[in-house]
Amino acid sequence: MTIQSFIPPHRILMGPGPSDISPQVLQALSRPTVGHLDPLFIGMMDELKQLLQYAFQTENEFTIAVSAPGSAGMEACFVNLIEPGEKVIVCRNGVFGERMRENVVRAGGVAVMVDDEWGKPVSVEKVEQALKENSDAKILAFVHAETSTGACSDAEALGKLAKQYGVLSIVDAVTSLGGVPLKVDEWQLDAVYSGSQKCLSCVPGLSPVTFSPAAIEKIQARKTPVQSWFLDQSLVLGYWSGEGKRSYHHTAPVNSLYALHESLLILKNEGLENAWKRHSEMHEKLKAGLEKLGFEFVVDEESRLPQLNAIYVPEGIDEAKVRSHLLETYNLEIGAGLGALAGKAWRIGLMGYAARPENVALCLRALEESLAQ
Amino acid sequence: MTIQSFIPPHRILMGPGPSDISPQVLQALSRPTVGHLDPLFIGMMDELKQLLQYAFQTENEFTIAVSAPGSAGMEACFVNLIEPGEKVIVCRNGVFGERMRENVVRAGGVAVMVDDEWGKPVSVEKVEQALKENSDAKILAFVHAETSTGACSDAEALGKLAKQYGVLSIVDAVTSLGGVPLKVDEWQLDAVYSGSQKCLSCVPGLSPVTFSPAAIEKIQARKTPVQSWFLDQSLVLGYWSGEGKRSYHHTAPVNSLYALHESLLILKNEGLENAWKRHSEMHEKLKAGLEKLGFEFVVDEESRLPQLNAIYVPEGIDEAKVRSHLLETYNLEIGAGLGALAGKAWRIGLMGYAARPENVALCLRALEESLAQ
Repeated sequence: MTIQSFIPPHRILMGPGPSDISPQVLQALSRPTVGHLDPLFIGMMDELKQLLQYAFQTENEFTIAVSAPGSAGMEACFVNLIEPGEKVIVCRNGVFGERMRENVVRAGGVAVMVDDEWGKPVSVEKVEQALKENSDAKILAFVHAETSTGACSDAEALGKLAKQYGVLSIVDAVTSLGGVPLKVDEWQLDAVYSGSQKCLSCVPGLSPVTFSPAAIEKIQARKTPVQSWFLDQSLVLGYWSGEGKRSYHHTAPVNSLYALHESLLILKNEGLENAWKRHSEMHEKLKAGLEKLGFEFVVDEESRLPQLNAIYVPEGIDEAKVRSHLLETYNLEIGAGLGALAGKAWRIGLMGYAARPENVALCLRALEESLAQ
Repeated sequence: MTIQSFIPPHRILMGPGPSDISPQVLQALSRPTVGHLDPLFIGMMDELKQLLQYAFQTENEFTIAVSAPGSAGMEACFVNLIEPGEKVIVCRNGVFGERMRENVVRAGGVAVMVDDEWGKPVSVEKVEQALKENSDAKILAFVHAETSTGACSDAEALGKLAKQYGVLSIVDAVTSLGGVPLKVDEWQLDAVYSGSQKCLSCVPGLSPVTFSPAAIEKIQARKTPVQSWFLDQSLVLGYWSGEGKRSYHHTAPVNSLYALHESLLILKNEGLENAWKRHSEMHEKLKAGLEKLGFEFVVDEESRLPQLNAIYVPEGIDEAKVRSHLLETYNLEIGAGLGALAGKAWRIGLMGYAARPENVALCLRALEESLAQ
């Protein structure tokens, strides 16, 4: 074998994530590594907590980045909050609702499913019905922004419903954080996880999470230990606490955290409302162009995520060939369909730094050319 | 709050990890992010597998990097290989043997402990005794290089003992990989995990692992599902398989994997034997200097790891003050004692790119000056 250094091309990332990353963030990523217990690094982690609190719109003390991808953040929420035998109402309207069910079962919980069609938002009425019928349920779990379909569910209504029926909520905000309004405290959400590589436009590999005081209380009152040592948040808490005395848990992914700090700083400087507005405006621009080309969206207009545009592949088109063409000719990545939509849809991401007019224009022009071939 | 970009100083990392990182690796880290399903990235992952096989000295097909720190790699080994109720013999001669026990218990296993004093290697005789007394044991778990003490255990003898008694071995090679001989196939080890931030001198956050065919067979014959979805290696296998068709599991930490590829390439180009020799030579140099200064090692000479030098803090010295002084004056990080050695020892790392004459000279000079104050 003769292996050389890997020199990737400069792709334009308009799939479901990772999204385009600002050069400023890549620069931060490559700054010299310091020790994970270095006082300066501990100071940076404290700032990171504040920046995450801003992004999540929360004052939750326990707001950190799990040192692993979003699927580990998901698992962290489930294994910490569920004790064996507990009932969890899980909303499923795409791939990630099903993954939630998997997590519940593996954590020893009992999943009660509330199903909605792929591409539709979670039905608030059905969830209320399920809560009524399962008064022994402890948790309501749902996906705010379904990455597999591009549907946005009403996290505010669902969060408040959970409170009304006395259950905790676990919310997948992987694709929503930074792209559409998400107000953890105002909506009374209890355990929310996200990913670094979507609308935050950071490198993949980190999962921001936040736990409400009620969620922390449930964790602290557990009768059984959390099944995962790595994801046991009662241990992680000692590591992220800003009290000066830090207990060693694992070695933090130092450089990735530099990048997250920088990407959150960019978000803070832009302002959340402005970021949401930018995603929405770019979506309108893209939508107008796609409709002109005759594309149809998978999701109805009122529940469409601006940052993830799932459109049906026109009949007679080899969808994989088009994606390869875009990649090879324009260095442009768009996403394939996932699960039930595999082979039938494309997913065009406008996430974070990718939500720019030049990306929208390139994508429309390249798609038009590809289809004309 | 007014938060600025985080600009870390250039530290010289001679603690227990993260270790110094070559500028070449940091450069690779910051190359443009590509999609995790991009054909070029999949090609890079295939190369990465080959490079990891070289580093581990194995032909195991299942040789990958877990997308999380070493403690997640540890957990991946335990939760995949243990089924509830199974007996595991765990060797404990430092912090990480105890962490192994935690993992066994949380995975529903029964841990039979073989204890040795901190700073001593695992006793092969005691392990054989335990294997004889526990003929129903399924797994032997031990730490090759104890990061908390700097003791190296005889992984070859222990691995062969496991085979002789018909049990699988789980081996912690976090600090050994790349620093001292580790020959997975020759020593017949079954599940071995490491970390990116030790002798590979890559950024922290990844855990190289390798599973023997016998280990894979046990995983495939499981009667119960793996309790962790994120760490379920039967799912991860589909993601890392080089068959062209890759099933989505999670979003790989793209940029960190660039860095790991580069650091393994550096190791390959140097040659494993040369790397081991370099670690050993730098250790001799450091040892000679430390002994001149009157320091005593925690570990006896015959089982001392060259890459992790635990020495007792001289009486009457405020150890934390010395470490702060080294950091503030020389940007030099050395490690504190951990667990039973907290406050009593320092740990001086000579790992990977940090194992250079200039680091040794600086460390000796800086320590001498600090003690004279």
